[in-house]
Amino acid sequence: MKFSKFFMPTTKEAPKDATLPSHQYLIRGGFIAQTGAGIYDFMPLGKIVLEKIRAIVKEEMDNAGANEVQLGFVTPLSLWEESGRSNTMGAEMLRFKDRKNSDFVLSPTNEEAVVNMVKNRITSYKDLPVHLYQINTKFRDEARPRFGLMRGREFLMKDGYSFHSSEEDLIREFNLMEATYKKIYTRLGLEFRVVNADSGAIGGSGSKEFHVLANSGEDTIVVCDSCDYGANIEAAVRKPNKKEKLQTITLEKVETPNQKSIEEVNNFLGTDSYYSMKAVIKKAIYEDKTKIAVFFVRGCDELEETKAVNAVGAIDLEDASEDEIEKVGLVAGYCGILNITSNVLVVVDRELEGENNLVIGANEENCHYKGFDLTTLEDVTYKDLVAVQEGDICDCCGGKLSYTKGIEAGHIFQLGTKYSAAMNANFLDENGKAKPFVMGCYGIGVSRLVAAVIEQNHDEKGCIWTKETAPFMVDIIVSNSKKEEEAQIGEKIYKELKEAGIEAILDDRLNARFGFKMSDFELIGFPFAVVIGKKLEDGMVEIVNRKTLEKIEVEVENVTKKIIELL
Amino acid sequence: MKFSKFFMPTTKEAPKDATLPSHQYLIRGGFIAQTGAGIYDFMPLGKIVLEKIRAIVKEEMDNAGANEVQLGFVTPLSLWEESGRSNTMGAEMLRFKDRKNSDFVLSPTNEEAVVNMVKNRITSYKDLPVHLYQINTKFRDEARPRFGLMRGREFLMKDGYSFHSSEEDLIREFNLMEATYKKIYTRLGLEFRVVNADSGAIGGSGSKEFHVLANSGEDTIVVCDSCDYGANIEAAVRKPNKKEKLQTITLEKVETPNQKSIEEVNNFLGTDSYYSMKAVIKKAIYEDKTKIAVFFVRGCDELEETKAVNAVGAIDLEDASEDEIEKVGLVAGYCGILNITSNVLVVVDRELEGENNLVIGANEENCHYKGFDLTTLEDVTYKDLVAVQEGDICDCCGGKLSYTKGIEAGHIFQLGTKYSAAMNANFLDENGKAKPFVMGCYGIGVSRLVAAVIEQNHDEKGCIWTKETAPFMVDIIVSNSKKEEEAQIGEKIYKELKEAGIEAILDDRLNARFGFKMSDFELIGFPFAVVIGKKLEDGMVEIVNRKTLEKIEVEVENVTKKIIELL
Repeated sequence: MKFSKFFMPTTKEAPKDATLPSHQYLIRGGFIAQTGAGIYDFMPLGKIVLEKIRAIVKEEMDNAGANEVQLGFVTPLSLWEESGRSNTMGAEMLRFKDRKNSDFVLSPTNEEAVVNMVKNRITSYKDLPVHLYQINTKFRDEARPRFGLMRGREFLMKDGYSFHSSEEDLIREFNLMEATYKKIYTRLGLEFRVVNADSGAIGGSGSKEFHVLANSGEDTIVVCDSCDYGANIEAAVRKPNKKEKLQTITLEKVETPNQKSIEEVNNFLGTDSYYSMKAVIKKAIYEDKTKIAVFFVRGCDELEETKAVNAVGAIDLEDASEDEIEKVGLVAGYCGILNITSNVLVVVDRELEGENNLVIGANEENCHYKGFDLTTLEDVTYKDLVAVQEGDICDCCGGKLSYTKGIEAGHIFQLGTKYSAAMNANFLDENGKAKPFVMGCYGIGVSRLVAAVIEQNHDEKGCIWTKETAPFMVDIIVSNSKKEEEAQIGEKIYKELKEAGIEAILDDRLNARFGFKMSDFELIGFPFAVVIGKKLEDGMVEIVNRKTLEKIEVEVENVTKKIIELL
Repeated sequence: MKFSKFFMPTTKEAPKDATLPSHQYLIRGGFIAQTGAGIYDFMPLGKIVLEKIRAIVKEEMDNAGANEVQLGFVTPLSLWEESGRSNTMGAEMLRFKDRKNSDFVLSPTNEEAVVNMVKNRITSYKDLPVHLYQINTKFRDEARPRFGLMRGREFLMKDGYSFHSSEEDLIREFNLMEATYKKIYTRLGLEFRVVNADSGAIGGSGSKEFHVLANSGEDTIVVCDSCDYGANIEAAVRKPNKKEKLQTITLEKVETPNQKSIEEVNNFLGTDSYYSMKAVIKKAIYEDKTKIAVFFVRGCDELEETKAVNAVGAIDLEDASEDEIEKVGLVAGYCGILNITSNVLVVVDRELEGENNLVIGANEENCHYKGFDLTTLEDVTYKDLVAVQEGDICDCCGGKLSYTKGIEAGHIFQLGTKYSAAMNANFLDENGKAKPFVMGCYGIGVSRLVAAVIEQNHDEKGCIWTKETAPFMVDIIVSNSKKEEEAQIGEKIYKELKEAGIEAILDDRLNARFGFKMSDFELIGFPFAVVIGKKLEDGMVEIVNRKTLEKIEVEVENVTKKIIELL
């Protein structure tokens, strides 16, 4: 390819809202262009990168035996009614009516559509397993689209769905997909981490996320410094934080005037916050109702909100207003587990189970209890509610846990029968008995990966593409295209590289100065440049490594050999 | 690939509304599945065919120097307001609001989006020409989606847009695209015809359509039996039909009681319908108004409605009601060109220009005029309005014109400055003067081609894929997969073909009988089958040609050699 024949408009200005390097550089480098909130066009350079990533994903999915399909981007709402998700997907699922007033959605994900495809077409265990995937456009009407391709509304996703006759076979495929995803991210040249995850709105039991490590990542990942344990903070666990058990004492109500926060109360009473119960009051949102929920964790711990959502099976949690809190008989600042009315949901962190001699709120203005024994209460719901902190102990190996930041670039789920049962999608097992398909689902954010590569690989000058994602491997820069000899040598090297199967682009722009060509090279981020300039008098050109910015001089006749060596 | 690992659910039943062979066979063969009116999923076999066609289109577009991009499927309505098409696109353009109540459309075509991409990014004639294309999903909310992939609502389209500094350069690119499209259809193995076309809602001046010839085609194509002239009936012209000129006589009003049709009138008066003016009254629809329009053609001709729409610059024509006709002072059945009020649009077919001694309606119940001389009227608008008939004479060579049926599979347009001027998208010319880009646009219906291949290539048993479109070239049918020897030979031939680079699929299904495997082969339509059956005792297998259904016996060891020969 030649610059003169290629539409690659670079610019010095990044949009004002572009805070991430990938957002700035992909716009400035002429890879993408914004047309609306969270909606981006891919210009030719961006399209090449996108297709390279797509091709790798496709190749590895095909190698793993999955069959590619293509599902409608526009899906009838009726399918979502069958699964029940029309009520739970919320405003992210964009709904609209066609000219005949029928209801449709822009696919945000495709579990329903693929169950619909397989239903009645696979009827026997003999035809299982089947894994169908597509690499197709999705739309999620994000409340706050931002960060360029990272959190857009329209995006390209690889979504795969597998169908099995047993849980065991699902787990085999789930493991195969974990291995396949690792191959994909490795081929893309990315540093990544596979972590345990929460399943969110997709549902199902086990799930793992694939995070591209980058400081700008939106997700907090908990990792162990001595084993390979990793988890999204939403799903991270730790070795329970155990201090010595106190002696049981008699329950006693004490005055704690104006001591509302857990720190204030423990300071005031001279107690250790470890031996106290902190209440977090929330409003739990369900399809058809809301309920006040109180979550109790140790005074020294923090509530992890996703765990709390899952603990009460809600769609979401919101802050409760003072009125709402009063109405159910709770006293903010003094909320405790004793005397809570039955219309309030109560969940206690599992690390508190069996604890005694605790400080708790008395549900009465300016009062707490001392010496509360949790074992005296029956029917308490214990769940994992705590947010793992840096420095906590790894439950797998005893190592130290710490935080890192990740960009979620993949997510695999063991769905089980959630969708097949709801949509009545069955097969006949070996005994001729109808059973719902056991399903897995597997996603990769293909267009998000374009940005993730840059978040992980850039410097203050621009993008640094990895070898498998680079739009072209070598940028041949003719310093002054008006000088005939330079132009000729440029063409010669361009032909040589092409013949050697190396993707090269020739910067043959007549009216662009050398400095401009060089800064385009740095901004766009091709792995190597060959600079044809003054040293041509001595038969030499320069090869520049974009990553290290190192320059080496090479004889004109050895350029291709040297480039092959460097690759 | 092996049948046992591939999701290809064939069925005996076609949907009731499937009248076209492609619709029936693509559903029955497990290529596509319907999810809603005009919305189809591609199952694995269909996806392979779609991707093969896509790859050929991409390769030829790249060879022609076009740059691939990807535009948002969801486009802000504001872009369509800029061009003015928000008012003219009608209900086919599906509009909706996002969660913030902003207006968007599902792209039915992308002139606006691509002008928006180029605008302000290309500023000088030095950076022209540029040709950007994409192969991407489109949505048109058809009033009557039908014929499977042929007239769906969601479909895959290659749409390209070129930008030039002059008309001459546009014409160069237009010709290059005509040549490129011819290469594409030829590679796909299709019989096709390039014809002159009407530009329709896209606008612009010259345009050509590419029709895949098939009896089921929705379009009537006029072709010459002795030269290569071809045109869509909407744009077809003929050598004017000239009879001897009559003597001028005095205008005379005559009674024609109850003689309303042009045949009745001419029979009654004993005149030749050639020398009469037939009126067709329509309601012309504009953005902001409607107007009654009367089109006059010879009594022996028929009005071509698309020509009529263009003649009055309307969006569409509808039938006018009796009330509407009366209101503007016209008398249905007796409508003539004399005494028409000025609020009615009048267009006369150009073949009538200069004609005298005509029979025309008198705009009075039961009355006509004889001896009307058109040259006595001033300010008459003459336009080409006639529908070319079979047997008419070719204007290029004097040959005979006839009809054939075509499936529109491509359309190229010389747009000119219609969009760039409306959207204020300019470049600076050699004199530093701002001018709007001169544009062309070029479309191929990629998913429609999947159906078009089958419309042209099928028999009563099923599909017959061409070599470049076949999902697999050879179907290796193991008659009885439970017989170990047959199964082994099947595997052996499968490996051999794969090693020879031939795409093969092995029908290794344990529980399917031979007849079932054979009818799947015929229905799906792989170009060749290798049947491993009883003759294996003599070391022989059968090769079946799907197109001719001919069978030849070949020694097991010569199968690959023979298949290569046949290809």
